Amino acid sequence: MKILIKNIKSLILINNEYQVKNCDICIDGEKIVSVGESADSFIPDYIIDGTSRLAIPGLINTHTHSYMSFFRNIADDLSFSDWLFGRISPLEDKLTHEDMYWGAMLACIEMIRTGTTCFVDMNMDMRAVIDAVTHSGMRAVLSRGLVGEGNNEGGRVRLEENLRAFTECTNPNITFLLGPHAPYTCDCEYLKIVTDTAKKHNLGLTIHLSESINEVENVQKQFNCSPIELMEKTGVFDVPVIAAHCVLLSDNDIDILRRNNVTVATNPKSNLKLANGIAPLVKLYEKGVNTTIGTDSAASNNTLNMFSEMNYTAMLHKGVSHNPTVMSADDVLKMATVNASKALHNPNIGQIAPGMCADITILDIDTPQFKPQNNLKSALVYSACGYECDTVIINGKIVMENKEIKTIDTQKVYYECEQIIKRIDS
Amino acid sequence: MKILIKNIKSLILINNEYQVKNCDICIDGEKIVSVGESADSFIPDYIIDGTSRLAIPGLINTHTHSYMSFFRNIADDLSFSDWLFGRISPLEDKLTHEDMYWGAMLACIEMIRTGTTCFVDMNMDMRAVIDAVTHSGMRAVLSRGLVGEGNNEGGRVRLEENLRAFTECTNPNITFLLGPHAPYTCDCEYLKIVTDTAKKHNLGLTIHLSESINEVENVQKQFNCSPIELMEKTGVFDVPVIAAHCVLLSDNDIDILRRNNVTVATNPKSNLKLANGIAPLVKLYEKGVNTTIGTDSAASNNTLNMFSEMNYTAMLHKGVSHNPTVMSADDVLKMATVNASKALHNPNIGQIAPGMCADITILDIDTPQFKPQNNLKSALVYSACGYECDTVIINGKIVMENKEIKTIDTQKVYYECEQIIKRIDS
Repeated sequence: MKILIKNIKSLILINNEYQVKNCDICIDGEKIVSVGESADSFIPDYIIDGTSRLAIPGLINTHTHSYMSFFRNIADDLSFSDWLFGRISPLEDKLTHEDMYWGAMLACIEMIRTGTTCFVDMNMDMRAVIDAVTHSGMRAVLSRGLVGEGNNEGGRVRLEENLRAFTECTNPNITFLLGPHAPYTCDCEYLKIVTDTAKKHNLGLTIHLSESINEVENVQKQFNCSPIELMEKTGVFDVPVIAAHCVLLSDNDIDILRRNNVTVATNPKSNLKLANGIAPLVKLYEKGVNTTIGTDSAASNNTLNMFSEMNYTAMLHKGVSHNPTVMSADDVLKMATVNASKALHNPNIGQIAPGMCADITILDIDTPQFKPQNNLKSALVYSACGYECDTVIINGKIVMENKEIKTIDTQKVYYECEQIIKRIDS
Repeated sequence: MKILIKNIKSLILINNEYQVKNCDICIDGEKIVSVGESADSFIPDYIIDGTSRLAIPGLINTHTHSYMSFFRNIADDLSFSDWLFGRISPLEDKLTHEDMYWGAMLACIEMIRTGTTCFVDMNMDMRAVIDAVTHSGMRAVLSRGLVGEGNNEGGRVRLEENLRAFTECTNPNITFLLGPHAPYTCDCEYLKIVTDTAKKHNLGLTIHLSESINEVENVQKQFNCSPIELMEKTGVFDVPVIAAHCVLLSDNDIDILRRNNVTVATNPKSNLKLANGIAPLVKLYEKGVNTTIGTDSAASNNTLNMFSEMNYTAMLHKGVSHNPTVMSADDVLKMATVNASKALHNPNIGQIAPGMCADITILDIDTPQFKPQNNLKSALVYSACGYECDTVIINGKIVMENKEIKTIDTQKVYYECEQIIKRIDS
């Protein structure tokens, strides 16, 4: 289908800086074919009126656990151990394949509704999430959370199942990473096996690193080094890695991350809510580490709203560094778009530009929080709530229009999620 | 008018803890007359269907500068001095009485839209804000920002004008505070004059205190004490005070605030964005200081959205105190409602209960961020974006219904605010 987005204010990357320009955006099939004045020769099948609207590259959430969405608000204001061992884990043990599908669908609804077009997921059931992503029309980079000790059977089986799910997936909008869960759930031998497998299949990894004081202290006690140092020694960083959290980092850790081109997916809201603290993001940024943004799951956030996460990323680090000039709106918008595309080694997403995949989010800016229109780039980070998004196009397909998601029966998903919680939490 | 809100989930204070209960809410004129099952004898003029909705007490924003709304996003990512002296102050000098009316109207639109029914304002033109509040239908507690040295004419004239505006105001939903701006804009003699005037007229005060390192260091240098200690010595705390910010406090400062029953209106987002830091809110809370929440102005936030501010209040202090159990959803909801009613010495607002003023915000919770409905109290603080609010009742009058504000021509306000910025920033 040929889509013309007519006369719309658009967030365009010019000389590595975002600017807002008035333009027409022409989409042919899966690709953006022109941005600027539309040629007379472009005969659209469908026209979207850009009046009072702002087009931005679809946002990329680089760390979440989509299936956990039905745990939203089920375990708040608790200590980490009460949260995880008292509430989340016992509930998780009762989940079926179908449950995880509905959880991932709820996540897709919330992400599409708030302008996210692509997400990096660590899940417990690859096929459930593949189905949800496919039905929703989203783009995704999926990993199964791998837990294992040495060369034991459980870890090997999970890895093999995971690889089989990859090869069986026929959706071209889904790609894969391997997802060793964390240094405290994977021992070094298993991490080596996973890394070797990644090398063999030309895959990257995603892993939770340096999230909590507990984790860092335990690794220090056992290995006399930091989790980041341990990963370098173990060879995990020999493949491309997206490391989630990275809250507790030494200067040496930051050097290691930079030297190994590791991407850090920061999760400011989850880190605050679970009381793990605040990542040294300004230092990471200044040292040239590629940084991106993730929401983590709805069990620890409790939203998958990238606008809220961008807002926290900017505000928090100004406050704790006592410097209001750091983490500018431009920096943060790049983290949620082009930095993420770099992390995913996918140069075809993250920008509104000719030749790119047509992943576009359109916001209705005829709302008080966008008035007056002094600086729309600032407004996206400092004023938007996320629910201004009214149209979302992914890979050239209109997935949401006028705030109605066209690919999903949202009421059915809400109903199923309520039923799951009633069953497992009774 | 008699309004029946039929069969709605409602946030009700029971034994000093919020609970969500299904009920009918009956409103007669300005008051809530019953909460529970509605009596057959109550014949409503108008019925609001509570299906898929949640009723909460109208939120109370205890610190803002409403007229500044058109400065939203005009000066971001700048140092404090570039922000204030380079951008905001020069623009502010060009504002007319009419400009400030439109700015305050924009603020009222944003606050009503996001469920705030009452706000505490420090302004530069009392009549402009009185008119805006009156036209919008909001409840407000207004103060003019008073700046002065000793008994000089400027400070005296501002105070007299201010008192005249009070006596001339005929809107019973507006009450007043005196608003000495800050220790760095009012000397001790002027603070004494303002405090004596407050005593004479039985008024409280609101003032910015201990907001920035600069302020604290300067007071320390000049008076060899902290701003809080200086206020106690000067007698400012002899009247009821709402102190905004209070970012930098010693243990002695906190004892002084407690001893003098000073309310602290915390502004977490403004303090982060201007890089002033993070208030010791957990300590204030534990020591028994009455704490409330304010957004500050749209020039330093950049929203007047109390849901976002509640979210920050909970998340931030869990993170920095490394304790996820502090600042619970219940604590934060009270800060935005009953604690504020206490600060304003107005026991008739801040709760949904018989006899209270009918200030009620109704949210549409048929939205992904509210699914599943595991804990609606948590959802209000951790998942809501604020724009779920679809109906707002203030003093028994429906001010917004189905997300349409009935009292204000929003497009006219947006237009006027754009024109003001074009004129003053050219």
